[in-house]
Amino acid sequence: MRVSELGEFELIDMISKLIGKPAKDKTILGIGDDSTAWRTDTGIELATIDTLVENVHFTLDTITYHELGWKSLAANVSDIAAMGGIPLYALISLGLPGTTDVDDIKKLYEGMIELTNRHNVTIAGGDVVKAPQLTISVSVTGKATDDKMLTRSAARPGDIIAVTGNLGTSAAGLKMLIGKLKFSEETTSLLRKAHQQPQPRVAEGQMLVQNGVKAAIDLSDGLIGDLGHICRMSRVGANIDIDKVPINPIVKDHFANKALELALVGGEDYELLFTAKPDIIDKVRELIATPITVIGEITREHAGKVLLLDANGNTIDFQKEGFNHFSR
Amino acid sequence: MRVSELGEFELIDMISKLIGKPAKDKTILGIGDDSTAWRTDTGIELATIDTLVENVHFTLDTITYHELGWKSLAANVSDIAAMGGIPLYALISLGLPGTTDVDDIKKLYEGMIELTNRHNVTIAGGDVVKAPQLTISVSVTGKATDDKMLTRSAARPGDIIAVTGNLGTSAAGLKMLIGKLKFSEETTSLLRKAHQQPQPRVAEGQMLVQNGVKAAIDLSDGLIGDLGHICRMSRVGANIDIDKVPINPIVKDHFANKALELALVGGEDYELLFTAKPDIIDKVRELIATPITVIGEITREHAGKVLLLDANGNTIDFQKEGFNHFSR
Repeated sequence: MRVSELGEFELIDMISKLIGKPAKDKTILGIGDDSTAWRTDTGIELATIDTLVENVHFTLDTITYHELGWKSLAANVSDIAAMGGIPLYALISLGLPGTTDVDDIKKLYEGMIELTNRHNVTIAGGDVVKAPQLTISVSVTGKATDDKMLTRSAARPGDIIAVTGNLGTSAAGLKMLIGKLKFSEETTSLLRKAHQQPQPRVAEGQMLVQNGVKAAIDLSDGLIGDLGHICRMSRVGANIDIDKVPINPIVKDHFANKALELALVGGEDYELLFTAKPDIIDKVRELIATPITVIGEITREHAGKVLLLDANGNTIDFQKEGFNHFSR
Repeated sequence: MRVSELGEFELIDMISKLIGKPAKDKTILGIGDDSTAWRTDTGIELATIDTLVENVHFTLDTITYHELGWKSLAANVSDIAAMGGIPLYALISLGLPGTTDVDDIKKLYEGMIELTNRHNVTIAGGDVVKAPQLTISVSVTGKATDDKMLTRSAARPGDIIAVTGNLGTSAAGLKMLIGKLKFSEETTSLLRKAHQQPQPRVAEGQMLVQNGVKAAIDLSDGLIGDLGHICRMSRVGANIDIDKVPINPIVKDHFANKALELALVGGEDYELLFTAKPDIIDKVRELIATPITVIGEITREHAGKVLLLDANGNTIDFQKEGFNHFSR
């Protein structure tokens, strides 16, 4: 069977089972969460790895090297943020064609450094190899805040579902870039930045874990897909009130009836989605300056599934679930 | 300027300078050594990252998926071994075409698991992405043995230069595979294994650091190239007695006058090259079961350069210095 037939998540599942036995000895969380985690004498260490491939995950027609440097690190730092953790060190393995301009590599690293400086992360090492297209593998290590973690498996029936910031802005930015859509300078800049220089919610993740939140994920695949991961790993269901999903007014204005789809399946917003009891949600909404929006609730029913409800509480059929990296 | 004109090591140097400032705050060793290292409350942590790209670093014509899994992890575990460290956790980011057979991915992970089981390393996490060709990024973290490390910058004039095992066997294996050379079953198996399933010298590295050795590197680029790294980073020179370079008799028999070249510039043996005062070398030769061969000495003269000497002490001109990944 081909990987494209099996699907990304089934492939990861197969790999998890293969390496499952030794992993259980020492690790707290193996493959399947945003980061992997293991206990040491002084606390819990976190680590994550991710690869961006030219013409699969980005094209140099629409992203600058500086932005690409930022984004490649932001995605990994966001994985640590999704655990409520403190990102500390980054390792970068760069694959590039011999024809690459040295100045472009300089810009790539400057973008990485801008992001790491903002989050007090140290680029500790890496390597450079030849490759037919630009390939950026980043590994970020960190530690858990106060020995506690946000995980995908801790959502419980009765939990409220909330998200930081707005959803769909990044996907709107991608649509603008690919479609070469012309908007005002301000709108163009906002949408471009949302897609190319996302802000990992590091401080927010740490405040969530410090205030009793236990379940979270960062929105990289899209709301439905990522909430689906939480549902499967927590063996719970989820109801989303689609009218409550926060969408930037600029996205609503410029993408009209497409805006909700962008918010539901768009991906790459790198906002945090988390679940907790109502009193905890109330507390963190007061403490965290970033806007937090309640969008639904965790249910005992329809475990593993995300239901979308309209204003009247009717279920909406929405086929597109997340982003299967191999099928498109 | 293109990357191919600048050269791999100059590119790494440029990157080191770019990220140099923040790295100095927290890291003990940044880019430039086998692994990067930083101090924590409980000791020194080590981390390394490396990427193998199909048709650049390997071709599926000559390597099985099982061997590839082994080799991709062995290279990183060897980087930790070169620091005298204890490898602990591996993260794997896999890029692959959708057409890849799922069974092949299973074999790839089985190869990885065989290697990690042997060295008590846990595959703690990773991800899978789509890519136009098979791309394997591996990051391995570990810790320093007794808070001490082997580095590339600790060689001193008067040190003896020694290596574990034999050199050139891996390159001979590659020559056999590419040239489809026909040898006896035993020879074929030995050469193939040397190239496709190298043995990282983990236990040996730990014994070196425990017994007072301070300078080492693993032989991935080739003896001359890798010893050159030590010379530049330690600001010393090196003299190699070419007659002393250990070569497997099978390689001598089958590759005749090419055998020495394979041993000097072949690469990917993943043996350890180390330097220390004569009494320390004598001690570790007694303690370590793996054969250790003295091949030369570190000098104050011709700093940064490796000189090759024949049996009469005359210098030999050997142009090919190591393996510049971008120029061929």
